[in-house]
Amino acid sequence: MKDFPGTPGTITALVLRVSQCLFAACSIASMATTNNFFSVTAFCYLIASMGLQIIWCSGLAFLDAYALAKKKVLHNHVLVSLFVVGDWVTATLSLAAASASAGVTMLYVADVPSCRVGQECLKYQISVSFAFLSWITIAMSSLLMFWLLAAG
Amino acid sequence: MKDFPGTPGTITALVLRVSQCLFAACSIASMATTNNFFSVTAFCYLIASMGLQIIWCSGLAFLDAYALAKKKVLHNHVLVSLFVVGDWVTATLSLAAASASAGVTMLYVADVPSCRVGQECLKYQISVSFAFLSWITIAMSSLLMFWLLAAG
Repeated sequence: MKDFPGTPGTITALVLRVSQCLFAACSIASMATTNNFFSVTAFCYLIASMGLQIIWCSGLAFLDAYALAKKKVLHNHVLVSLFVVGDWVTATLSLAAASASAGVTMLYVADVPSCRVGQECLKYQISVSFAFLSWITIAMSSLLMFWLLAAG
Repeated sequence: MKDFPGTPGTITALVLRVSQCLFAACSIASMATTNNFFSVTAFCYLIASMGLQIIWCSGLAFLDAYALAKKKVLHNHVLVSLFVVGDWVTATLSLAAASASAGVTMLYVADVPSCRVGQECLKYQISVSFAFLSWITIAMSSLLMFWLLAAG
């Protein structure tokens, strides 16, 4: 398999994984400190999806760090296929969760003026922004993994 | 470039493109016949996104039909790169629009019982379901195109 920045076991891959974890954690922290997130399905789904992303990305970050420390190459075909499927599933769930929460936040902030929930709205917006940042980084990882698999 | 079902100029590709257009049109029809869609940003975004998808997919469907009729091969590298970028952009926008509308629909249907809007809710649900079907078909096309490009 070809070797380019972003493939498993490189510094770029490790940086991408760590940023995915950080952005997802910030998104959860901002959403979980609101008072009423549990009454909206989309916000609960955002927390579940970001939680799944943290589990997946921290696992891969440890693997990348291990490969870097031991100078191992992780270009096994079966392993890369597993990374591709996992990355695509988490990326799709993240985008869906971020968009669903963005839809509800837009409804609260702009569409229904009687629904204003003050300080809470700012936290919803911060949480959604971090979720989108997290999605952007995992989408980059997914594309790199898929390219690596397809290019053989 | 390799030739497999779903690559430009094959029957599978044409069927996928036509179903994308049909599902997107059904989604717009169901949403546009509600009375209050214009007061919710997510629903307006769904209509805009499905409209863009119809324009893109009908263009590619005509191209596939032309290639099938004239028995031409559309495996030009520049052309496939253009298809990949266009497919990924429309697929991402479709998923985001479908999820945002699903978030708002869930809020109306399940989370806020006082917000019940009766018959309208059914139309929102139908529209969101068609948007997700449309996204599934365009995601399949996108993966096939990306694979074709990466496999060279």
